[in-house]
Amino acid sequence: MAESLTDLPRRSVWHGWGDPALARRVPAIAWPFFKALRGLEPSPVDTPPVALGDVRLPEPAVGREALGDLAGVVGPEHVSTERLARIEHAGGKGYPDLFRLRTGDAGRAPDAVVFPGDAGQVAAVVAVCARHGIAVVPFGGGTSVVGGVDPERGRFGAVVSVDLRRLNRLLSVDPVSQTAVLQAGMRGPEVERALAPYGLTLGHVPQSYQQATVGGFLATRSAGQASSGYGRFEDTVVALRLATPTGEAVLGGRAPQGETAAGPRLIDAVIGSEGLLGIVTEVTVQLQRVRPHVRQESWAFRDTEAGFEAFRDMAQALGRGVLPDVSRLSDADETLVVLLQAAAGIPAYGYLRARGWRAPSLAVFQLEDADPRSLAYRRRRLARLLRAHGAVRMPRSIAAHWMSHRFRGPYQRDHLMDRGLFVETIETATTWGSLRDLYGAVQGAVYAALGEKTVLQGHISHLEEGGASLYFTLLARAEEDPIAQWRRLKAAAGDAIMAAGGTITHHHAVGTDHRPWIREELGDMGVRILRAVKDELDPDGIMNPGKLLPD
Amino acid sequence: MAESLTDLPRRSVWHGWGDPALARRVPAIAWPFFKALRGLEPSPVDTPPVALGDVRLPEPAVGREALGDLAGVVGPEHVSTERLARIEHAGGKGYPDLFRLRTGDAGRAPDAVVFPGDAGQVAAVVAVCARHGIAVVPFGGGTSVVGGVDPERGRFGAVVSVDLRRLNRLLSVDPVSQTAVLQAGMRGPEVERALAPYGLTLGHVPQSYQQATVGGFLATRSAGQASSGYGRFEDTVVALRLATPTGEAVLGGRAPQGETAAGPRLIDAVIGSEGLLGIVTEVTVQLQRVRPHVRQESWAFRDTEAGFEAFRDMAQALGRGVLPDVSRLSDADETLVVLLQAAAGIPAYGYLRARGWRAPSLAVFQLEDADPRSLAYRRRRLARLLRAHGAVRMPRSIAAHWMSHRFRGPYQRDHLMDRGLFVETIETATTWGSLRDLYGAVQGAVYAALGEKTVLQGHISHLEEGGASLYFTLLARAEEDPIAQWRRLKAAAGDAIMAAGGTITHHHAVGTDHRPWIREELGDMGVRILRAVKDELDPDGIMNPGKLLPD
Repeated sequence: MAESLTDLPRRSVWHGWGDPALARRVPAIAWPFFKALRGLEPSPVDTPPVALGDVRLPEPAVGREALGDLAGVVGPEHVSTERLARIEHAGGKGYPDLFRLRTGDAGRAPDAVVFPGDAGQVAAVVAVCARHGIAVVPFGGGTSVVGGVDPERGRFGAVVSVDLRRLNRLLSVDPVSQTAVLQAGMRGPEVERALAPYGLTLGHVPQSYQQATVGGFLATRSAGQASSGYGRFEDTVVALRLATPTGEAVLGGRAPQGETAAGPRLIDAVIGSEGLLGIVTEVTVQLQRVRPHVRQESWAFRDTEAGFEAFRDMAQALGRGVLPDVSRLSDADETLVVLLQAAAGIPAYGYLRARGWRAPSLAVFQLEDADPRSLAYRRRRLARLLRAHGAVRMPRSIAAHWMSHRFRGPYQRDHLMDRGLFVETIETATTWGSLRDLYGAVQGAVYAALGEKTVLQGHISHLEEGGASLYFTLLARAEEDPIAQWRRLKAAAGDAIMAAGGTITHHHAVGTDHRPWIREELGDMGVRILRAVKDELDPDGIMNPGKLLPD
Repeated sequence: MAESLTDLPRRSVWHGWGDPALARRVPAIAWPFFKALRGLEPSPVDTPPVALGDVRLPEPAVGREALGDLAGVVGPEHVSTERLARIEHAGGKGYPDLFRLRTGDAGRAPDAVVFPGDAGQVAAVVAVCARHGIAVVPFGGGTSVVGGVDPERGRFGAVVSVDLRRLNRLLSVDPVSQTAVLQAGMRGPEVERALAPYGLTLGHVPQSYQQATVGGFLATRSAGQASSGYGRFEDTVVALRLATPTGEAVLGGRAPQGETAAGPRLIDAVIGSEGLLGIVTEVTVQLQRVRPHVRQESWAFRDTEAGFEAFRDMAQALGRGVLPDVSRLSDADETLVVLLQAAAGIPAYGYLRARGWRAPSLAVFQLEDADPRSLAYRRRRLARLLRAHGAVRMPRSIAAHWMSHRFRGPYQRDHLMDRGLFVETIETATTWGSLRDLYGAVQGAVYAALGEKTVLQGHISHLEEGGASLYFTLLARAEEDPIAQWRRLKAAAGDAIMAAGGTITHHHAVGTDHRPWIREELGDMGVRILRAVKDELDPDGIMNPGKLLPD
């Protein structure tokens, strides 16, 4: 299993997640556990994806002249209308994307896929598409779970997916200022491999890390698991290079992180713009020195409620630099799942029950530090605070097991889908004052939409003084029409999140799936500002139609 | 002397800085010191400002109907065309502003000053001005040193200054999430006074603290002296309420600090927009718990070069949370000035010279912490690092004296001007890799522009992993035409900063003075983005004409 942060797996298979050689089946113990917990029973037999040859695919609608112009820019060998290339770019990795492809529906595939070789070629490709009136979908790792890379045509006759995989080089490093210029197509492991010789790290590790790219991190405001220690990706961006239908430019870069008062921070108009303004081709990022001293810790609370309070106190009393780099509090049901998977988990659970804790809540932490004394100091501060909240220490191996398995979830989803299960995640964030209500509201909405035979696990992470994120993973029996089931769930969860004052997405972005709520999220003035920038840079609207902005 | 952070002095006198009752003369020892250091001699006699009655002021150009409509919104007692009110709003507190007023020139005064009472009235005032085609200048503390509140008419026949002093209330506090909603007209001390009962603090303390307002902090991307510990003001902004000529709205607020991926961070289009989009009336800020344990430290390096290296190592090795909340490294000349003013300074200087350090560099720090053990730990880490860079500990009272006198500088400028001196500051920021060159480039430009008889002091502060800010204070003999002298200096310094790769302003903002370089700073695409947002929210361009954006 690729676990090291510099292991670079093969790119995702067309019908599922990641490198098939690393596929992981769900442990057999899971099935009786789901049944005991919620009465959820998978189908007894596997229903694997259809064969590639059986996938239904429309004829490519892009004209010969346009293809010729694209080939003129990138070379004919880097423009493809072939079956596999189009199917591999037919969508992201959300449940509906995978369900459609597994059942042979690639009706949304792009008409062609272009593989430019550098920033200049990307700019030229965008210009060609603007000239021919072809919609453009930027494609990095293709890991979007919100429809962000769906090749929608909008009002155009054709759509091209621009795959940035060839922009995978570290262009320069400034070891004194600890910054680097990265090409946008670099995947997470490629970044850390390239920086390791300098003793520097980006420290950005979302669950999509092995497949997702720098450009995708930027376009979606990605948050890594260690954001408490390294910041969200957007916090590391010093400058970016953007190719738009009306020209190419570098934004930012004159001052170190935010240390300027020369007008608004305009790179923030591009960060999170999900390809609607143009294609980000190069990013200058702030790096940190590698922290060789790493320690995991596991703790447990009497219940989730006690964990909420302790996590708020951690964020507000310890603060940046002392706070663990990774902090994750599992609710009662997720605690069971995590403990069940770790060797030390089952006896640990028995111990907690013996204390009379009927629904204990598990917290896992990772602390990374340059200085062993500093690491020891931070651990002491953490332990003192957790004990004051009634927490008890659990075997460290539980947190270590979670960390070493953190990239497996998306692989196991494929096996769950083989067994006829409906699998989805819901993520949001809000203030500490609203967190409990939001947690309850989402739980209620999910059970109401999918029924009681739903396995729903939640956790809190990404702590800030003001609040934190909430993340849910859910399993249910797939219905006759799983897409309709999915729509029902998304509508219920989205409405519940907005009603409870949460944000519609903490780190998955908006794409197509969260558009129904974006006007309520940004407000009319916010939408006007975003549309004004869009109209200035992409007046014809060829860039990633149908995403982010409301109609 | 008002030194406590909750002391609220009277508002600034029309011809100088702050509350005249707190005025501080330059210590007598300064004059021989300036002569010995650089051969700089002030005029032997004081030339005080002209009497208020002798200030030349044009007739107000605003029509009776417009005045009536404004009075209809705020009440006749809150609309003024009186002499003093117009003169008090004729400009900010830059050297040219003060020189003009001291010599009786209030030709730039606004035609009227309006004092709305709440956000709704501000929105209505902006609507009235839009209807009548009157330019609007938002006015908070009036502390701009870059012409940011100069009442320019642009293409309009009249200009009104909208003073937010009546919006000085704390509207609400969420003690669980540690956020508060502040009216934009609150001055620094008013904010801390209002938050103290909750045990919370904003921690934003720029040198303008006693006079500057929340709205100004936001509009100019203000950075406080303790930004390493509390962040820049922009880092604390969760949401804002904005009154524009095309409507009013709240932006942001659904998620705690940046914890969302729902499109770009649009409040960042408003933060730093210097009143060009509208008037910010209310701001939701993230607060921190008060840190009762405070400690100052003073250290010295063999030379400025050694200090540069140590400060970079501090920023990159200690990081947020461990780094002191305030860190300031004075170059050789500023070191002399600081030591000269502190009781323990002169013997300390003797000691450093006795070590053979011919041009020592002084560092002052302040650490603030909730936990005495944490404070002690941070001090140990700091001392270890500084000693590794050859620093020696100085009497703590030197740093304590600097901290307790930090608000006096602007007061003493008035006395320096009385004595016929030209006084200016230059501030920028860049990466650690470029910092030395930038420092040398600005020094060279200043001496070339003003001659060798210039007292020029520099310091580094606001440390980040990637770089830091550079700040210079300079004194020279005022020439026959000090405004021409000022223009010559600003042109030389600005060109030198841009050529050396620095940002044109670290925290003073752009206003009118830095506009010549803003296109080079933001790039053509940056200017296009900013103008597109401006045209959307303020299509007629009535908001703060002549600031920030290039013509």
